[in-house]
Amino acid sequence: LHVSSLSADAVDKGTYRHFMQKEIFEQPTALANTLEGRLAGERVLEACLGPKAADLLARVKRVRLVACGTSSHAGMVARYWFEQIAKVPCQVELASEFRYRDPVIEPDTLFITISQSGETADTLEALRHAKGKDIAASLVICNAPESSLVRESDIALMTHAGPERSVASTKAFTTQLMALALVMLLLARRNGLSAEEERRHVKSLESVARVVEAVLQQDRQLQKLAERLMHKNHALFLGRGAMSPVAMEGALKLKEISYIHAEAYAAGELKHGPLALVDEHMPVIAVAPNDELLEKVKSNLQEVAARGGELIVFADREAGFKDAPGVTVIGMPHADELIDPIVYTIPMQLLAYHVAVLRGTDVDQPRNLAKSVTVE
Amino acid sequence: LHVSSLSADAVDKGTYRHFMQKEIFEQPTALANTLEGRLAGERVLEACLGPKAADLLARVKRVRLVACGTSSHAGMVARYWFEQIAKVPCQVELASEFRYRDPVIEPDTLFITISQSGETADTLEALRHAKGKDIAASLVICNAPESSLVRESDIALMTHAGPERSVASTKAFTTQLMALALVMLLLARRNGLSAEEERRHVKSLESVARVVEAVLQQDRQLQKLAERLMHKNHALFLGRGAMSPVAMEGALKLKEISYIHAEAYAAGELKHGPLALVDEHMPVIAVAPNDELLEKVKSNLQEVAARGGELIVFADREAGFKDAPGVTVIGMPHADELIDPIVYTIPMQLLAYHVAVLRGTDVDQPRNLAKSVTVE
Repeated sequence: LHVSSLSADAVDKGTYRHFMQKEIFEQPTALANTLEGRLAGERVLEACLGPKAADLLARVKRVRLVACGTSSHAGMVARYWFEQIAKVPCQVELASEFRYRDPVIEPDTLFITISQSGETADTLEALRHAKGKDIAASLVICNAPESSLVRESDIALMTHAGPERSVASTKAFTTQLMALALVMLLLARRNGLSAEEERRHVKSLESVARVVEAVLQQDRQLQKLAERLMHKNHALFLGRGAMSPVAMEGALKLKEISYIHAEAYAAGELKHGPLALVDEHMPVIAVAPNDELLEKVKSNLQEVAARGGELIVFADREAGFKDAPGVTVIGMPHADELIDPIVYTIPMQLLAYHVAVLRGTDVDQPRNLAKSVTVE
Repeated sequence: LHVSSLSADAVDKGTYRHFMQKEIFEQPTALANTLEGRLAGERVLEACLGPKAADLLARVKRVRLVACGTSSHAGMVARYWFEQIAKVPCQVELASEFRYRDPVIEPDTLFITISQSGETADTLEALRHAKGKDIAASLVICNAPESSLVRESDIALMTHAGPERSVASTKAFTTQLMALALVMLLLARRNGLSAEEERRHVKSLESVARVVEAVLQQDRQLQKLAERLMHKNHALFLGRGAMSPVAMEGALKLKEISYIHAEAYAAGELKHGPLALVDEHMPVIAVAPNDELLEKVKSNLQEVAARGGELIVFADREAGFKDAPGVTVIGMPHADELIDPIVYTIPMQLLAYHVAVLRGTDVDQPRNLAKSVTVE
């Protein structure tokens, strides 16, 4: 049983102007809380998945992730991790699509749902559908211990984000990523990941709170950047690999609270259509860490810059990106590849937040949206 | 060996104003040509995949589809078919993502690439990567018989679309869908689809040319609709199930040639973010056939209509949708569910074409884009 650590000041805004701002700045704590008690000797404790976990995980040969909205972006990031690090075949799908078709689920699948509230209607129905199939186990990544998804899943791994009040999800998303990284490492170990490798990844996870804290210090820089974006009506976010869903999350945040039409693309798709849209009215925001993909993203982006588009690049300070005419580089702390999706999400959140404030929208309660989509 | 049926008038515009327009109107012929010689007694001839096909297909337990741009939308439609009708587990992925990560490919996978030109750089590299793994066979759906993808694949199934000159792909896409339906039926038969069911699906495929011909008669109606969209700077396309990638293709067409920022969403995701964008400046275009999903799409869309958004619904004439204030219904011929993705693509193409003409863009050569993306 998870005892909520919810305290009185967790549900008011304190010194922050909006819940969203408060929740963005709570992330170092929320991420640390989500790790707490789940590691020992720089390994992940299988017991964090409960007493049934060992038996259930032993059977797992595949992972299927199902979620909606922001939670689906967490699943998309995790898919890269599950295949690249754990070498477990992994698919991710929107709950609203999964539940209305007749999907083939192969045997020995770990069926993972992700939902902040644990009450997302489509995700709950997807779980019920999957339980009628021959799955190895159902696991939910959730922030609400008493929720329907927790009750109906074989295993629950709680994100200890604390209550999230802003409609636009922030700390729930990054703690979902943390929880998914833990599950991934447990499967990776069973799939042959060495103790040394596991320790290296665990050290990365332990460093997240500190790195995120450092990124939050760039708040003022992102506020300045927001001043340049506030009058735009469009934006294009680009990423590759595990940063592609981070670009999607960045676009979604901007969309939800600033009402700017932001769209994300896998960077490689740029030449297959969206490049036609790029001009001085549509800034391009690239989420480009210093990894093997950086050179390719660079070459795509040079092309855009040459065609009049304004380019904003979030990149590792050590990657050698420099400002140039039309190109603004936001330097990010160097971090291990595993945690980059968490680290690069933070400036996306801050940017969207400041643009929304400048545009005068109702940041915590954007028009037309509800916090938990408990109806279809 | 495929002998090209290319004739002199196939490469000029004839009486059409643009290649794109010509190629849209060639679709009944292109679709019929792609079926020709591949059916016998209302069954699909396995021999259409060549002499090695029987041995290679016998091993197939899974399908992986990899492509870029419009071709990836064909793959996304086919994924619904492979799982729903053939009951074969199927994944689809962008070639640019697939090739730059280290994907897990399970044994006995039929690795299908899709490319009009057969020279798409990322797709070719994805194929080369997959051939280094233990796949059952590689199959390419392609419109260019002498191309690299055809040469390097175990099996090629040619789309007999004829040369496509417009940068924005139209007849290549719908004939890719036709070819994918044939492959799907061959696997479905091996997986237990009854002869009777197969015949029913084959009859659907045989009816496509006629149904598409009927939809093309709605050209004038779509031109009128285009007049209402030409001054918009945004559009949101919605679909569910196999119509979700059709919505994506509709948005991509509009984006590519009219430079309107059109974006597509799976209809169930509307409440998880994009609904915040919907107002009088962003028309919503729903691709909603008369199937089990229609009621859900309807309820999503009623919500949008109540909030000031203009709604355009492409729906089966027999579905009972009626015009209402702010709601325009474009009635479509009733067709079998299998071919709906082909049928509903046609008005998306015509709409994008007319909007582009009205906006005065270079329809056949949109800015920044090339016909074949043979570099990365």
